[in-house]
Amino acid sequence: MKTRVTNLLGIKLPIIQAGMIWCSGWELASAVSNAGGLGIIGAGSMYPEILVQHIESCQKATDAPFAVNLPLLYPAIEQHIESIIRLKVPIVFTSAGNPKTWTPALKAAGITVVHVVSSAKFAKKAEAAGVDAIVAEGFEAGGHNGREETTTLCLIPAVVDAVNIPVIAAGGIADGRAMLAAMSLGAQAVQVGSRFVASNESSAHLNFKNAVVQAKEGATHLGLKKLVPVRLLDNPFAQQVRALELEGADANQLGTLLGHGRSKKGMFQGNLEEGELEIGQISAIIDEILPAKEIVENLWAEFKNARKQILSWHVLNS
Amino acid sequence: MKTRVTNLLGIKLPIIQAGMIWCSGWELASAVSNAGGLGIIGAGSMYPEILVQHIESCQKATDAPFAVNLPLLYPAIEQHIESIIRLKVPIVFTSAGNPKTWTPALKAAGITVVHVVSSAKFAKKAEAAGVDAIVAEGFEAGGHNGREETTTLCLIPAVVDAVNIPVIAAGGIADGRAMLAAMSLGAQAVQVGSRFVASNESSAHLNFKNAVVQAKEGATHLGLKKLVPVRLLDNPFAQQVRALELEGADANQLGTLLGHGRSKKGMFQGNLEEGELEIGQISAIIDEILPAKEIVENLWAEFKNARKQILSWHVLNS
Repeated sequence: MKTRVTNLLGIKLPIIQAGMIWCSGWELASAVSNAGGLGIIGAGSMYPEILVQHIESCQKATDAPFAVNLPLLYPAIEQHIESIIRLKVPIVFTSAGNPKTWTPALKAAGITVVHVVSSAKFAKKAEAAGVDAIVAEGFEAGGHNGREETTTLCLIPAVVDAVNIPVIAAGGIADGRAMLAAMSLGAQAVQVGSRFVASNESSAHLNFKNAVVQAKEGATHLGLKKLVPVRLLDNPFAQQVRALELEGADANQLGTLLGHGRSKKGMFQGNLEEGELEIGQISAIIDEILPAKEIVENLWAEFKNARKQILSWHVLNS
Repeated sequence: MKTRVTNLLGIKLPIIQAGMIWCSGWELASAVSNAGGLGIIGAGSMYPEILVQHIESCQKATDAPFAVNLPLLYPAIEQHIESIIRLKVPIVFTSAGNPKTWTPALKAAGITVVHVVSSAKFAKKAEAAGVDAIVAEGFEAGGHNGREETTTLCLIPAVVDAVNIPVIAAGGIADGRAMLAAMSLGAQAVQVGSRFVASNESSAHLNFKNAVVQAKEGATHLGLKKLVPVRLLDNPFAQQVRALELEGADANQLGTLLGHGRSKKGMFQGNLEEGELEIGQISAIIDEILPAKEIVENLWAEFKNARKQILSWHVLNS
């Protein structure tokens, strides 16, 4: 399937695996890229030398394009940028920061740059900064989240109307029906996170993968809003956050509770009581751990099937 | 277009106008029904004798099916039910309450019953109570809202998978792209609220209609969560709510601030400072007041156009 995004990134299917801290190393990224989508290494939880290892391993494991996700507020950002350019990573997804700062350097090195936003306002700023495409991520997404709380259904048409560069939809997409829905709204590809957390190749701890599979409707909430809003799976830590917030706790108190290393403890080390577990609302309908290749194949098959349903609508479908 | 919902309700287009307090009287309901959709009289803000007048006026204004929306917690519910049965209203949309209580009486009178929910769990309960269809309404919707905060994109597939009766999608739908997206997820029709608030026939005060047209991205937030969560347009009242909530105010304090008559003051009397203004996130992309007929026609034309785009995807669409 050809869309503006498959053309831009040189991929077969308009399916992109989100770059997620603690969950998406080279094993997942290369598996998704080998399956025809775009795999992304999540650099936000990697020391500079670890990112280099993951890039090199990914290059050995696939000949297809892959990307690195780079949170722009990362403390050792210069080292990450240097490695990405030196190792000729073809595509970078940037997030959490100002796209003006690093886009020119990445573009000058021949790298395709995609920036993640949660509003049409920031989509326009990213376009002005020279990025090649936008990921527009809705309120239902796992992890860090916009203050406007705009959902994917409301966000995608607003962003599509606001910019001329192609838009990738993220947040709430774990099956082919949602993929078709996002593309009906004008997205040229989808970015899928939670579904790939529960994959064989994800570097998430098995305890966390199992928790994602077991998550039911209403099991995630946006928390830490006075710090940086983040969608968390309910667990004893998230309940502590909630209790504090209901009492009106300020950013300092929340920061003290959060401390350091909570996300590693939860998602990578599997401590389901004390760890921070970042996952999307759509975890409610994810019910098994699958190989990444099968996830891509399922998305594609379901998408084609949903499209056929739409084509059949001129006849009675009761 | 034939879907399970158009068949059930006897309408031409799978477009349903939401029954909204202070905004949807007989003028709006009959205009939508005459345009081929389903118009709904919002009984939640009407005294019993007022509802009777609206039903009778609607019957004079249209030969097409129309419905009444009935919040089941309404204090004089018995009188509303009696009027609906006596005047042979063909369809009732119930919300905000237990569908077990009144569904049997309405069904016994030959009335089609549709119940509004915000979770798959309550969709199953409504199905078990004998309703004919479900409206599944996501987090982005205006007015009262579910505690799980599940967005339309995540909610619709979950509800479609949970029940056998047909599902109508609500929340975030104001144009034909979103209509196609909702139906890609498995919905058999859409319910549209905010877009019809800003219609000529809406009984909303012109000040409120203008405020909806001017609303930008991020202009609504879910508030009063410790009472009943409700999506409000930001205004001085909503800012007061927010400030109290950030301080950890309890339900009593919020109830005291809310007082009585706030929604009438805002939406019907046009007091944009002190009134409660209930509207959906999608108000951000609504930019003019239109006749209801034109809104229905636009939705339908945009839907068909979006569907054509999907059909064209086998070729390059850059």
